[in-house]
Amino acid sequence: MILAMKKRIAVPTNQKIQLKDITRDIQKAIAEIGISEGLCIVFNPHTTAGLAINENADPDVATDLERAFQEMVPQVRFDHIEGNSPAHFLSCVTRHSLQIIVEDGRLQLGRWQGIYFCEFDGPRSRNVWVKVIAG
Amino acid sequence: MILAMKKRIAVPTNQKIQLKDITRDIQKAIAEIGISEGLCIVFNPHTTAGLAINENADPDVATDLERAFQEMVPQVRFDHIEGNSPAHFLSCVTRHSLQIIVEDGRLQLGRWQGIYFCEFDGPRSRNVWVKVIAG
Amino acid sequence: MILAMKKRIAVPTNQKIQLKDITRDIQKAIAEIGISEGLCIVFNPHTTAGLAINENADPDVATDLERAFQEMVPQVRFDHIEGNSPAHFLSCVTRHSLQIIVEDGRLQLGRWQGIYFCEFDGPRSRNVWVKVIAG
Repeated sequence: MILAMKKRIAVPTNQKIQLKDITRDIQKAIAEIGISEGLCIVFNPHTTAGLAINENADPDVATDLERAFQEMVPQVRFDHIEGNSPAHFLSCVTRHSLQIIVEDGRLQLGRWQGIYFCEFDGPRSRNVWVKVIAG
Repeated sequence: MILAMKKRIAVPTNQKIQLKDITRDIQKAIAEIGISEGLCIVFNPHTTAGLAINENADPDVATDLERAFQEMVPQVRFDHIEGNSPAHFLSCVTRHSLQIIVEDGRLQLGRWQGIYFCEFDGPRSRNVWVKVIAG
Repeated sequence: MILAMKKRIAVPTNQKIQLKDITRDIQKAIAEIGISEGLCIVFNPHTTAGLAINENADPDVATDLERAFQEMVPQVRFDHIEGNSPAHFLSCVTRHSLQIIVEDGRLQLGRWQGIYFCEFDGPRSRNVWVKVIAG
């Protein structure tokens, strides 16, 4: 079942907190997978990063969101020895996966929607997995 | 592959922030799609709205959630020229899609669960897409 | 279509707010379902609980997250008569479902990822549903 195997996409990040547009990478992976009708799953295998779909027209939206995510972390005691519990928290909020309908080999997104990798403990070498279920 | 195409449901909203119960609309779309076993995907193509599954017995729950979402927006500088960055933030938190198991042509929800469209920048003419993957 | 029916897993909780690792239970359910390639859906049928994928190496991460979730609830008026609106809010944030790629009959998780049931109004007898879509 070669067609259905997940594809791995490298996502290098270069800021501590960064929303990085990966829409084109995901679209390219779908073309390579070769399933034209179904459901695309984007999976983030990291515990200090997340995924989001939001506006990619005005770049101010992404930087506004970066500030808002950073500020939303509650001021509580964090015991985790690595000191990056805020990133684990934001990972839970922005989550580990996205699902997008695929028709005619194209991601079906709203007019203003783009797909973002959400880095919360960068910069790092990250990756996401892409799979398409036919249907 | 006509059966698998997404269906579009109109969701008019009439408040700035509004959780609107769309459970019946989704169930109706599934009946029309005609796949009785599988996975239902509800996709929100907007960047200032979201989706949620929560209690639809006591209407106070939805209005409590509307107040809580409004208040959870961090007090940071927002540069986006349209001035609706809080709605973009809440859209990221409540997200762009839901998935619900379908058996015997029925949404498999918990006893108290209903499906809500989450408007954060209304009132507007919104829509959601519904797809069912057989399996 | 016996193979595709959802499986029910009991998740007893013993704290008011508790992140409980259910990774092994989900893996066991997948083995029983017997679909080796596809997409696993974990569905939470409760309106005062959620699901998360995050680190399960250092147990401090889960307890840090429990404190952060509790603290993130906005201080607004809540009218819902049962008095557990904070739990409904946290359920919306942590959500009702997860999706994980399955290959060779194994959940495809990142190295540090585990699957957590998020109790926000415990202790209670909870359950989650597991389904696998082949593909």
